[in-house]
Amino acid sequence: MAKRDRIHPVILAGGSGTRFWPLSRKRRPKQLLPLASSEPLISDTFARLEGLAAPRDVLVVCGRSHARALRGMLPDDVQVLVEPQPRNTAAAIGLAATVVAAKDPKGVLAVLPSDHAVLDRRAFHRTLREAAKVAAGGSLVTIGITPTRPETGFGYIRVGEDHPAGGNAKRVRSFVEKPDRDTASRYVISGDYLWNAGMFVFRADRMLDEIERHLPECAEVLAEIAKAVGTAGFDRALSKWFPSCPSISIDYAVMERADDIAVIPASFGWSDLGSFASLPEVRPADHAGNVVQGDILAFGATGNVVVGHPGKPVALVGCSNLVVIDTGDALLVCDRERAQEIRQVVEALEKRGDRRLL
Amino acid sequence: MAKRDRIHPVILAGGSGTRFWPLSRKRRPKQLLPLASSEPLISDTFARLEGLAAPRDVLVVCGRSHARALRGMLPDDVQVLVEPQPRNTAAAIGLAATVVAAKDPKGVLAVLPSDHAVLDRRAFHRTLREAAKVAAGGSLVTIGITPTRPETGFGYIRVGEDHPAGGNAKRVRSFVEKPDRDTASRYVISGDYLWNAGMFVFRADRMLDEIERHLPECAEVLAEIAKAVGTAGFDRALSKWFPSCPSISIDYAVMERADDIAVIPASFGWSDLGSFASLPEVRPADHAGNVVQGDILAFGATGNVVVGHPGKPVALVGCSNLVVIDTGDALLVCDRERAQEIRQVVEALEKRGDRRLL
Repeated sequence: MAKRDRIHPVILAGGSGTRFWPLSRKRRPKQLLPLASSEPLISDTFARLEGLAAPRDVLVVCGRSHARALRGMLPDDVQVLVEPQPRNTAAAIGLAATVVAAKDPKGVLAVLPSDHAVLDRRAFHRTLREAAKVAAGGSLVTIGITPTRPETGFGYIRVGEDHPAGGNAKRVRSFVEKPDRDTASRYVISGDYLWNAGMFVFRADRMLDEIERHLPECAEVLAEIAKAVGTAGFDRALSKWFPSCPSISIDYAVMERADDIAVIPASFGWSDLGSFASLPEVRPADHAGNVVQGDILAFGATGNVVVGHPGKPVALVGCSNLVVIDTGDALLVCDRERAQEIRQVVEALEKRGDRRLL
Repeated sequence: MAKRDRIHPVILAGGSGTRFWPLSRKRRPKQLLPLASSEPLISDTFARLEGLAAPRDVLVVCGRSHARALRGMLPDDVQVLVEPQPRNTAAAIGLAATVVAAKDPKGVLAVLPSDHAVLDRRAFHRTLREAAKVAAGGSLVTIGITPTRPETGFGYIRVGEDHPAGGNAKRVRSFVEKPDRDTASRYVISGDYLWNAGMFVFRADRMLDEIERHLPECAEVLAEIAKAVGTAGFDRALSKWFPSCPSISIDYAVMERADDIAVIPASFGWSDLGSFASLPEVRPADHAGNVVQGDILAFGATGNVVVGHPGKPVALVGCSNLVVIDTGDALLVCDRERAQEIRQVVEALEKRGDRRLL
């Protein structure tokens, strides 16, 4: 890999979440689950970088409670940055930029979520390489996924004119919030909108400049941490300063305010795996139309998403479009269209203090 | 209880079945399951006799594989007759009549299934007492349940004119097979048909006469066994002779052929508990409309029948009219309307030789 093509992937693995309960728990968040393949999503995300970046250039940013599990799923030469406290994406990305900038101020970072799925790895590499080229010129670059349905669960990117960098790059006119159903339909039909997949590519120095301009409290913290990068005092500096970062997303803090944002439109079989309902986007259904893991006996049952408990058969008779998840200590049966409501179960368990299941 | 009112209840507990899989197994058939209350059906059936018959007058007929479990659920003074091989209801009832006749030839037997539910015990007693009075006069008496829906899963009894015994007793015009939907509707609307609930009341000598007339091979066997009743050789005689009985139901063998059959129409909150779908007939639903056993967290879910595994919560989100049964070693999720198809699961398990789950 020629130096000019060097990419520093930054995998954001700080997420916690409950949309995959009972598979996901506080100590076993989505990125640690084998949802898209037989490997955890974080392993898939790392493996997807083969041929694009060297393992020693990969940074993983995560919280304390998952650091150990994540390290166990990644090669030793991957650098894991452990946030002493979660401070949302602006701080996490700023931290990664600070670490990269210490050795390579104009180094190009590619920020990637740890818990999404990508089916077409070649197209993914092509897109990231193009984004990196544009970013090397100084632009902040975001990846915009060509929408395939009027999804109301994502933010959208409104695409403007061609970007001076050429190729597929466009200017971003605006980032727009999650739309209602009708608005989402208009967006998709217009052809002017892309899904915001939370993937950003930029030079370390440019991002730190933008943070200094738009989020000076964060820039001050990062400047203190920068002094300790590569020293034995790094962890202590991180613990001391990082919690003072304001907790805000990179979208709000920087991307929506910066001037020169480019977007690379892309289609690489992306799914955010937002809930069990999205598993059929990335996992093949069996001959009966069910996406299953485990020993399933299905009769007149179709469109179900089933994860059985090892060694325990799940019999489905005449039921359709359900999510059935058996983790041994809890069982979920959910209408596939209502998988978002699983959080109500988690809230109820929290309310009654059932920590064993959270 | 005056002698003339003495009833010998005969509980037929030889049934095996798969309609309650995965709760029911070969070694744990329906009558051993706590389906209508927190007690096994056989215990409910026995308890229902309190005030109607003395425990020492109760006979239970069952197969070898469940005798031990049944004995454990019943008082010691209940007599358990263990069939060396299952030979259907004619032989089982003939055996019970033989045992009663040895001490009390004109004794009145009341044959009762072991795995049904009765909600109104007082009405049940009233009906059986009236049936016993008619039977004491020499008639074979059956109990006919006033139908509440055009059920296609039961046989029907066509009611004729008043029986000379008076009271509510009617003559039986005919026993009819399970009807199709339209026929069942006509039956219910006509008011001339009752459900055949498999409950028969008769004098021991009269039943043995009928068996001799209509099923002489069985009568010969029973005559041999009769010689050993009350002796140490009873079990040996049973083992030697009983398997030679023809395997035929009492309905086909006797009831449909005998001349003087009376029926007592009855409504005592009866349910045959034919499948999980019928549990709501006998178990109250919770405030959300679900019939549940265990730790259930329901959100936007109604009309479900749920049996959880002890200590393991079942979360239901947005799903309706399902049967969800978790036995720890197997999980069933079934449309309530299609509970009859559970046998397909059992057949599949048999096919692959999964004896652990059968």
